[in-house]
Amino acid sequence: METQEKQRTFIDREQVLAHWQGHRALTRRVIEAFPEKDLFTFSIGGMRTFGQMVGELLAIAGPGAVGLATDEWKELDEKDRSQESKEKLLELWDQTTQVLDENWSKIPEERFQETQVAFGMYENPGYCSVLYFIDNEIHHRGQAYVYLRALGVEPPAFWER
Amino acid sequence: METQEKQRTFIDREQVLAHWQGHRALTRRVIEAFPEKDLFTFSIGGMRTFGQMVGELLAIAGPGAVGLATDEWKELDEKDRSQESKEKLLELWDQTTQVLDENWSKIPEERFQETQVAFGMYENPGYCSVLYFIDNEIHHRGQAYVYLRALGVEPPAFWER
Repeated sequence: METQEKQRTFIDREQVLAHWQGHRALTRRVIEAFPEKDLFTFSIGGMRTFGQMVGELLAIAGPGAVGLATDEWKELDEKDRSQESKEKLLELWDQTTQVLDENWSKIPEERFQETQVAFGMYENPGYCSVLYFIDNEIHHRGQAYVYLRALGVEPPAFWER
Repeated sequence: METQEKQRTFIDREQVLAHWQGHRALTRRVIEAFPEKDLFTFSIGGMRTFGQMVGELLAIAGPGAVGLATDEWKELDEKDRSQESKEKLLELWDQTTQVLDENWSKIPEERFQETQVAFGMYENPGYCSVLYFIDNEIHHRGQAYVYLRALGVEPPAFWER
């Protein structure tokens, strides 16, 4: 990127990926901190369990990165993960980390400002889709912090990525 | 912005402001939805009340935008808001909306990639500070969703901004 353009940039694509993966590393620590027996059983106020939320996040991030790279979108496929161990969830999480890294550089440079129909349902410019994926993770992870506190577990520091 | 540069842009600064204000509009609806009697009394697992969290968000957003515009940073000044009514919190929220709009265009174009010491404490490139301010709001608002559900109140839709 030329110096003048860089100066005018809010954030470049490599920084977006690092930002996203930094959030994902924090969410991984929240999964690790969650008592295994509570992952798919504990909830507050009739909300979903954190394990179910993690299932949603897994259904979004990897397929979302592939969709942005190819503009071929499948329907959101939120698999039932409720029989998975914490170790398996973490393994799936790490696989997604790789899928993201591998596909990010394949996203055409104009894709972020173009409109796509993410997952065949959500019509938005690419940058809005990416931010939505990240924000949705922050939102649910914030909820997991309350679950952890209610369970008497100290969550990892929010500012560490 | 030139067409070619626009094509290579992940997000431009006007889009960042709209994204932030969209999140702030949602948080405003969460404040509105919160039962007034619970704002500064209800909490889960020894966490702060949502009213206290709103106090933090008010201390960050407006002064943060002024700091980015001027590079003059004061210490984070989280005032005790626990005697304020919900109406007053919403009024302060709306004042911050204006402060953000007024100061955003004054932020020098290179500031987002330059490192500053936000609030005299947090040394980061400008874009990281902005994203931290937004992410921190999403994080605490996600916690407020759990509080609302625990109180039997339906929160506003996350995807509406």
